[in-house]
Amino acid sequence: MRYFYLSAIILFSLLCSAQTEQLIQYVNPFVGTQRMGHTYPGATVPFGAVQLSPDTDTIGYEDNGQYNRRVYEYCAGYQYDDPTIVGFSHTHFSGTGHSDLGDFLIMPTTGDLKLNPGTEENPESGYRSRFSHDNETAEPDYYKVLLEDYGITAELTTSNRVGFHQYTFPEKEEAHIILDLKHGIYNYDGKNIWTFVRIENDSLVTGYRQTHGWARTRTVYFAMEFGKAFKSYGHKKYDNSIYNGFYRKFDEEQNFPEMAGHDIRAYFDFDVEGGEQILIKFAMSSVSTEGALNNLREEIPEWNFEEVKTAGQESWNEELSRIALETMNEEDKLIFYTALYHTCLTPIIYEDVDGKYRGLDQNIHESEGFTNYTIFSLWDTYRALHPLFNLIQPDRNRDMIKSMLAHYGQSVHHMLPVWSHYANENWCMIGYHSVSVIADALMKGVYTDDPDYALEACINTATYPKYDGLEDYMKLGYVPEDRNSSSVSKTLEYAYDDWAIAQIAGIAEDYQAHDKFIERSKNYKNVFDPVSKFMRPKLSNGIFRDEFDPLNTHGQGFIEGNAWNYGLYVPHEPERLVEMMGGKEEFSIMLDSLYTMQLTDEHIEANEDITHDGIIGLYVHGNEPGHHIPYLYNWTDQPYKTQERVRMICNTMYANAPDGLCGNDDCGQMSAWYIFSALGFYPVCPGSEDYAIGSPTIVSAEIKLSKRRTLKISTENQSPENVYVQEVTFNGRKLENWIIRHSDIMRGGELKFVMGENPL
Amino acid sequence: MRYFYLSAIILFSLLCSAQTEQLIQYVNPFVGTQRMGHTYPGATVPFGAVQLSPDTDTIGYEDNGQYNRRVYEYCAGYQYDDPTIVGFSHTHFSGTGHSDLGDFLIMPTTGDLKLNPGTEENPESGYRSRFSHDNETAEPDYYKVLLEDYGITAELTTSNRVGFHQYTFPEKEEAHIILDLKHGIYNYDGKNIWTFVRIENDSLVTGYRQTHGWARTRTVYFAMEFGKAFKSYGHKKYDNSIYNGFYRKFDEEQNFPEMAGHDIRAYFDFDVEGGEQILIKFAMSSVSTEGALNNLREEIPEWNFEEVKTAGQESWNEELSRIALETMNEEDKLIFYTALYHTCLTPIIYEDVDGKYRGLDQNIHESEGFTNYTIFSLWDTYRALHPLFNLIQPDRNRDMIKSMLAHYGQSVHHMLPVWSHYANENWCMIGYHSVSVIADALMKGVYTDDPDYALEACINTATYPKYDGLEDYMKLGYVPEDRNSSSVSKTLEYAYDDWAIAQIAGIAEDYQAHDKFIERSKNYKNVFDPVSKFMRPKLSNGIFRDEFDPLNTHGQGFIEGNAWNYGLYVPHEPERLVEMMGGKEEFSIMLDSLYTMQLTDEHIEANEDITHDGIIGLYVHGNEPGHHIPYLYNWTDQPYKTQERVRMICNTMYANAPDGLCGNDDCGQMSAWYIFSALGFYPVCPGSEDYAIGSPTIVSAEIKLSKRRTLKISTENQSPENVYVQEVTFNGRKLENWIIRHSDIMRGGELKFVMGENPL
Repeated sequence: MRYFYLSAIILFSLLCSAQTEQLIQYVNPFVGTQRMGHTYPGATVPFGAVQLSPDTDTIGYEDNGQYNRRVYEYCAGYQYDDPTIVGFSHTHFSGTGHSDLGDFLIMPTTGDLKLNPGTEENPESGYRSRFSHDNETAEPDYYKVLLEDYGITAELTTSNRVGFHQYTFPEKEEAHIILDLKHGIYNYDGKNIWTFVRIENDSLVTGYRQTHGWARTRTVYFAMEFGKAFKSYGHKKYDNSIYNGFYRKFDEEQNFPEMAGHDIRAYFDFDVEGGEQILIKFAMSSVSTEGALNNLREEIPEWNFEEVKTAGQESWNEELSRIALETMNEEDKLIFYTALYHTCLTPIIYEDVDGKYRGLDQNIHESEGFTNYTIFSLWDTYRALHPLFNLIQPDRNRDMIKSMLAHYGQSVHHMLPVWSHYANENWCMIGYHSVSVIADALMKGVYTDDPDYALEACINTATYPKYDGLEDYMKLGYVPEDRNSSSVSKTLEYAYDDWAIAQIAGIAEDYQAHDKFIERSKNYKNVFDPVSKFMRPKLSNGIFRDEFDPLNTHGQGFIEGNAWNYGLYVPHEPERLVEMMGGKEEFSIMLDSLYTMQLTDEHIEANEDITHDGIIGLYVHGNEPGHHIPYLYNWTDQPYKTQERVRMICNTMYANAPDGLCGNDDCGQMSAWYIFSALGFYPVCPGSEDYAIGSPTIVSAEIKLSKRRTLKISTENQSPENVYVQEVTFNGRKLENWIIRHSDIMRGGELKFVMGENPL
Repeated sequence: MRYFYLSAIILFSLLCSAQTEQLIQYVNPFVGTQRMGHTYPGATVPFGAVQLSPDTDTIGYEDNGQYNRRVYEYCAGYQYDDPTIVGFSHTHFSGTGHSDLGDFLIMPTTGDLKLNPGTEENPESGYRSRFSHDNETAEPDYYKVLLEDYGITAELTTSNRVGFHQYTFPEKEEAHIILDLKHGIYNYDGKNIWTFVRIENDSLVTGYRQTHGWARTRTVYFAMEFGKAFKSYGHKKYDNSIYNGFYRKFDEEQNFPEMAGHDIRAYFDFDVEGGEQILIKFAMSSVSTEGALNNLREEIPEWNFEEVKTAGQESWNEELSRIALETMNEEDKLIFYTALYHTCLTPIIYEDVDGKYRGLDQNIHESEGFTNYTIFSLWDTYRALHPLFNLIQPDRNRDMIKSMLAHYGQSVHHMLPVWSHYANENWCMIGYHSVSVIADALMKGVYTDDPDYALEACINTATYPKYDGLEDYMKLGYVPEDRNSSSVSKTLEYAYDDWAIAQIAGIAEDYQAHDKFIERSKNYKNVFDPVSKFMRPKLSNGIFRDEFDPLNTHGQGFIEGNAWNYGLYVPHEPERLVEMMGGKEEFSIMLDSLYTMQLTDEHIEANEDITHDGIIGLYVHGNEPGHHIPYLYNWTDQPYKTQERVRMICNTMYANAPDGLCGNDDCGQMSAWYIFSALGFYPVCPGSEDYAIGSPTIVSAEIKLSKRRTLKISTENQSPENVYVQEVTFNGRKLENWIIRHSDIMRGGELKFVMGENPL
């Protein structure tokens, strides 16, 4: 792996433009590609609509729709330990724990035409190829690999909506470009509703793929242009769709310019010379093939691969330069900028160059006055990713909120997104955390447009009775476990979300709504069992369920967590939580136990989405519900333990290596946690202005807040041993209560940490 | 059957507006609904996009895609002899011999909810109902029936793009409206690609149906509005599509506002009082549900069923009044206006109220300066239907040609339509007869816009080498039977079409193209065997195939015909045909034999698409290839035999009865033949200005040619016995050669036939 391979052009532009540092050299796209990170190493621009990346396998469901452990590994299409590459597809989630996508796989081959992908064990049986990490390079918006079985060098880069492929062939021979529309991530028979390919001329192809997967009804259109005319083409259908047309007029399989079926694979034949390159531009659209073609012509009018790559990498340098950094070592810098890179992959831009996109109602909409985004993994990202955007990407976050409100406007349920992608609500996970993202942005002055409409959207979302136990929650003040599983998690998250809505109501000056949702925000108390001192599943008759194992992560009222770690979820009233649990001292002891508990392997295995390294005692950093927990010591008399734990997690749970993420990156949430923590503070309760102070790992940093304002973070006595904060000052004034407010930060200035090797 | 039931309002408007005669009283929509006519009795406006009609059955394919005789009977969804109605669907072909459509079946029921259609033998097993023709009424744009099993009176009318249902319930009970998206005509498992329903609110529903049938990739969107809010709703899925979303948050089947699957049936529940009516507006669009909703709101803003019906029937009176008529008896008038009605059903308007439509490339297009039409059954309709339009519907025919040219512009094959419907080329039948329609309209001054572009489109169509033997045809001058079946039919039709292209080239003043296509137009000679005096299949080695049975309609080089009847197809050079066949006398004898030959039952059975009554000797009036044959005596010395035959065909092959059509009406071609022949002339060679004189059946007629001009056709001594024309004069001048020219007619005036009981 040579992940900071620098092309001559980048070196040249580095010399020419001293202004933008080549920060892409500190990004290692392979981080998270091994085991549970679920990131992809391929090419994309910041928040780019196209993620062009190698797929090393995409094992389909074996039993109709049944969960298949191996499928899960391929959420991002790539697993670092795999020996073969199937091809390069154009859409990938970054870090998710469920999947879809993998649209439009392209693979260059030579020799006999093979249309099936073959297997890892026997790659010769299909079109896939062996590869080695020695011949593989990944940089922001650039990926290169040698496809060993063919000797073809594959290079990939992208603009926002267009993937650019460059394939260099080793010798004079017959070459094929496979376009596999059957391929997909989390594929199974029947997932493809329809696939369609149209040969516009001898170098331009259009079409679409329509799927019924995690996104229930999704169509992606494409326009694919070759730099060289193909000499022939054809396809095979891998389904039993019946078509009796043509009346023996045509041979449908060969050189017939319109191909259609549930599952088709097309191919294009070329004669190539040794060293010859075949270039392909591949544009996508949610609107139409016409939209895709417009995107193609607008974004990449020329055939200059290097130019597109350079432009993409420049855009990365620009995004990364929002935070300048001095670290204790090179490794930390690599971890930091790779994390920052991972926070700039999701949500993605979801509209054509003319602003049109297919909405939730399947009609074509136009974004007016904003850029429309999709992929909202909100149960994850409301925690730290969107708060990070409020700090360094306020314009994008504002547009993301407008995108969520547009979703609400198109929703037949009149709800904001729960977990949405490509104009589909997939209903994944729990809560209605859009309201937290909106509250946080409103509170921090990032979204100011229409608080009344935002409030209406939030209230409608939070009162849709059919949604996930909400009817009971509104009636009883909690979700009863006998009627709805994961009832405690849901009650706790609804309560927090309701607090967020109350904040919005406050800004919108709707005091009745404010009071109503403040009251709902106290509902966490209804699932607290004062006897066991745990949050605990309650039945519809008002009695706690007898059966209760606080260590068990399944069937105990929690989702992807248990009473020990998920039960600490009262981010909006940590003081009350501490009080309920027996006061500061007892709470601190409880936190200590959480971090030091010896678990059985069985209990560890039961935790989802993480590697074993992702657990410290019963604290699970590899999943989201506990991300605020290390900071909770700040509400006891032992904030130094927060500093200890945060520094420890930064050092042990993140690394500059393929297995450098201890769990799913979850669209950047894991990485956003790192960015905040490395800088020394964290948003424990989004929707509030407060950041809790931790222990910075950096030596110094400069955050561009706006064109005129900068936040400088500096440390004194910083060292690997000096993890304890002795004093924090902002613009010379000492901070109280281990809290710094967003509005203070936004005035700009210097946040200074004095570090020491002993607790204060 | 009470097909001239007149509503109070029509009577009223009849009294008020003396200007437009109530010609709809002479239309019997049941004509052709029995046996082979393949017409539908339901409601539609002239050339209307919605054809809302009862389906009495739609037997699916039994074996994967294998031809199924019973399916064939249901091309239009309705067979007069059937005892039950399954429901009312919104799209129907008129008179075709293959099918598709039947979109969006609606059925009102009461009592227990049944979601399957049940069977004819056991209607109680499903939602269908018995009915009787005694309680059934069909008028232009109005259909009424009593659904006996429920006591519900169903009434249907339409605007252009919206179906309007009115269901009257007999007593207080629970009612259901079924919306069956699985239903379709020519359905089979896997034909539905996707179906989608969205409950916008308690009385508005949108959605779409996407099929892979005769139209390879077709999507129709709808918006459905109820006059009364439903109290609950739900659906069932009849397929194995997997959806793992919802995460147990929702019960998908009941009251969940978004339904999707390959095959779904939805239902809506109501409480109704005795005598209560449920009204439904059902709009369609090829663009989007938004487009359908716009169509609905624009075309039928109110809830007044009678108003919509009256407007629809007025538009029929207007179309029918283009020809005023005096006949020898009431029956002839009924036959004539019913035939005229059938010529105004196809092609249909295919665009939203804003001019947008989904094109052949599946992108959204806008018709600029014309109205876009679809359903072009050109192998049938170029013969007499489009020529009839040039006479009485020039504006529509101009727009149809613009629609065909738009198709060409969107075609990946760069071809004009062969047989197209709903922006799909289905490639049915042979030839490229768009060129004939264009030539005829150019020659007659109906289409004048851009002859050069029209010529380009025609030439590209006629030189696409992959199309149906064209490569060989261009190389050898004929289609060789050993490489392409129906080779003689193809050669003959290509030759005629090439002559038509030469006419266009002449108008476009491209003399090189003119000469080239005139040369190609002689290719009929290459399949003429001077020994047997038959057109005969030739092999690629230039030798006629040994095996040859001129009576056999299968495998003998012809399609839906044989050497006897199809071999007479040289419409552009009948003189040469007569000459080749041995001169006038011999040719006349041959024609006599054709009409008098005694056939075995086996030979009769082999003829497609017709009833036994559709044959006279070996002349098959129930199918198209011979439609010009009765007029060929005009090129012998015995034109009186043309007069005899034409009058005989008019009297025996058309009737005012459900079985009143002797074969498929074929989108109005059979009926257009009748209109021309009843008026006394026929376009033997579209693309030429000449009409051949026959024997009029009318007493007199007035054709509105334009606002200012009228053609009056009058007869002297007209009677059932006086079938022979003694003299024909146009504006007092005696016609020579049994020919009248279109440009003469268009000057207006009087065409006068003197009839007699003996040949001249």
